[in-house]
Amino acid sequence: MRRRLLEAGLALVHEHGFAASGVKDITDAAGVPKGSFYAYFPSKEALAEAILEHYWSDIEMRLVPILHEDGLVEERITHFFHALADDHEAGDFLLGCLIGKLSLELGGSSDPVRAEILRVLDRWDQALAACVRSGQGDVKDIRTDLDAAELAPLLIEAWEGAALRGKVTRSRTPYDRFEAVTVPALLH
Amino acid sequence: MRRRLLEAGLALVHEHGFAASGVKDITDAAGVPKGSFYAYFPSKEALAEAILEHYWSDIEMRLVPILHEDGLVEERITHFFHALADDHEAGDFLLGCLIGKLSLELGGSSDPVRAEILRVLDRWDQALAACVRSGQGDVKDIRTDLDAAELAPLLIEAWEGAALRGKVTRSRTPYDRFEAVTVPALLH
Repeated sequence: MRRRLLEAGLALVHEHGFAASGVKDITDAAGVPKGSFYAYFPSKEALAEAILEHYWSDIEMRLVPILHEDGLVEERITHFFHALADDHEAGDFLLGCLIGKLSLELGGSSDPVRAEILRVLDRWDQALAACVRSGQGDVKDIRTDLDAAELAPLLIEAWEGAALRGKVTRSRTPYDRFEAVTVPALLH
Repeated sequence: MRRRLLEAGLALVHEHGFAASGVKDITDAAGVPKGSFYAYFPSKEALAEAILEHYWSDIEMRLVPILHEDGLVEERITHFFHALADDHEAGDFLLGCLIGKLSLELGGSSDPVRAEILRVLDRWDQALAACVRSGQGDVKDIRTDLDAAELAPLLIEAWEGAALRGKVTRSRTPYDRFEAVTVPALLH
C-alpha cells in the first residue's frame, strides 16, 4: 500500500506540483482510503521526500550505469543526458525533471524536502564527478584545470535549465543544444 | 488597485507558488475586497500572466541596459548575470527566478501562462543575443561558429539551472560557478 501511495503521489506531484496535489487526490489515485495515508507517511512533506528518493533511485538504476560504460567520457556523459531527455520526451515534455520542479516549489519553504533534494543532488553530482574524473587521467580527454567535483554540478545545472526550457517549448531543442554545445564547452 | 493586486500577487506567487496562493490570500495581502479581484483579472491565470510581464519588465528596465554598456561583451554579460544574482541574494536565495518557477509549475498545464513565459523568454533571448552578436563582429571577441540566437538561450538555460541549485543550497556558489566557468566556456 505504501508503494501504491508512493507511485500515485509521484505521478500527481510530478504533473501538478506539490501544493496542487492533495492527500485525498493521492489516496484516490492509489485506490486506498484517505485515512491510511498517515499510517505510511507522517505528513505530505514526508511523501515528497520519499518520492524524490524513489525518482532518483529509478534513474540511478536505469541510467547512471551509462556513465560507467566503456568509451570516451564525453560520449558517456552525452549518452546519459540523452537518455534522460528520452524520458522527458516520452512524457511529451509535459513533466520535466521532478528534482527541478520540487527545488523551485519547495526549496525555499520546506526544510525536510530541501534536505532530501540536497541528498539526491549530491548522489547525482558524485556519479557524474566520478565519470568526469576518469577522463582527467593519463589520456587527458577532459580539461584538468577544473576539479571534477566542480564540473559535475555545472553540467547538471545547465541540464536542469535546458529541461526547464524544454518544458515550456515542449520540444527537444534545448536538450539537443545542451548536448551539442554545453557539454563539449564545459568538458574541454 | 490593479497595481496593488499585481504586486501582492507577484510577492505571494514568487514565494509560495501559483497553486499555494489563493485569490483570497492575494486580495488580503493587497488590502482589497476579495470580490474586486475579478474586476481586474478574469482569472488567477490572467494574474500569473500579468505578474510575469511585470517581473520581466522590471528586470528589463533595471538590468538589461547593462548588456548594452561599453566594454567587452563577455564582461557585460557577466555583469548582467551578476546583477541578477544580486537580486536573488537580496532575498536570501529563498525566491529564485519567477520565470523558472512558473515554467516548472505551470509550463505543462496552463496554455496562457506558457504562452506568456515564451514571450518573456523571447524578450530575454533577443536582448542577450543582440549583445552576443555585437561581440561577433570585427574584433572576434566571441566565438563565431555558433549564431548569437543559439548562444543566448544556452546562457539563459545554464543560468536558470544555476539559480535552481542556488535556491536549494541557499548560496551564491552555483551563480559564481556559472559566471566563472560556464559563461567563458560558452562564449569562446
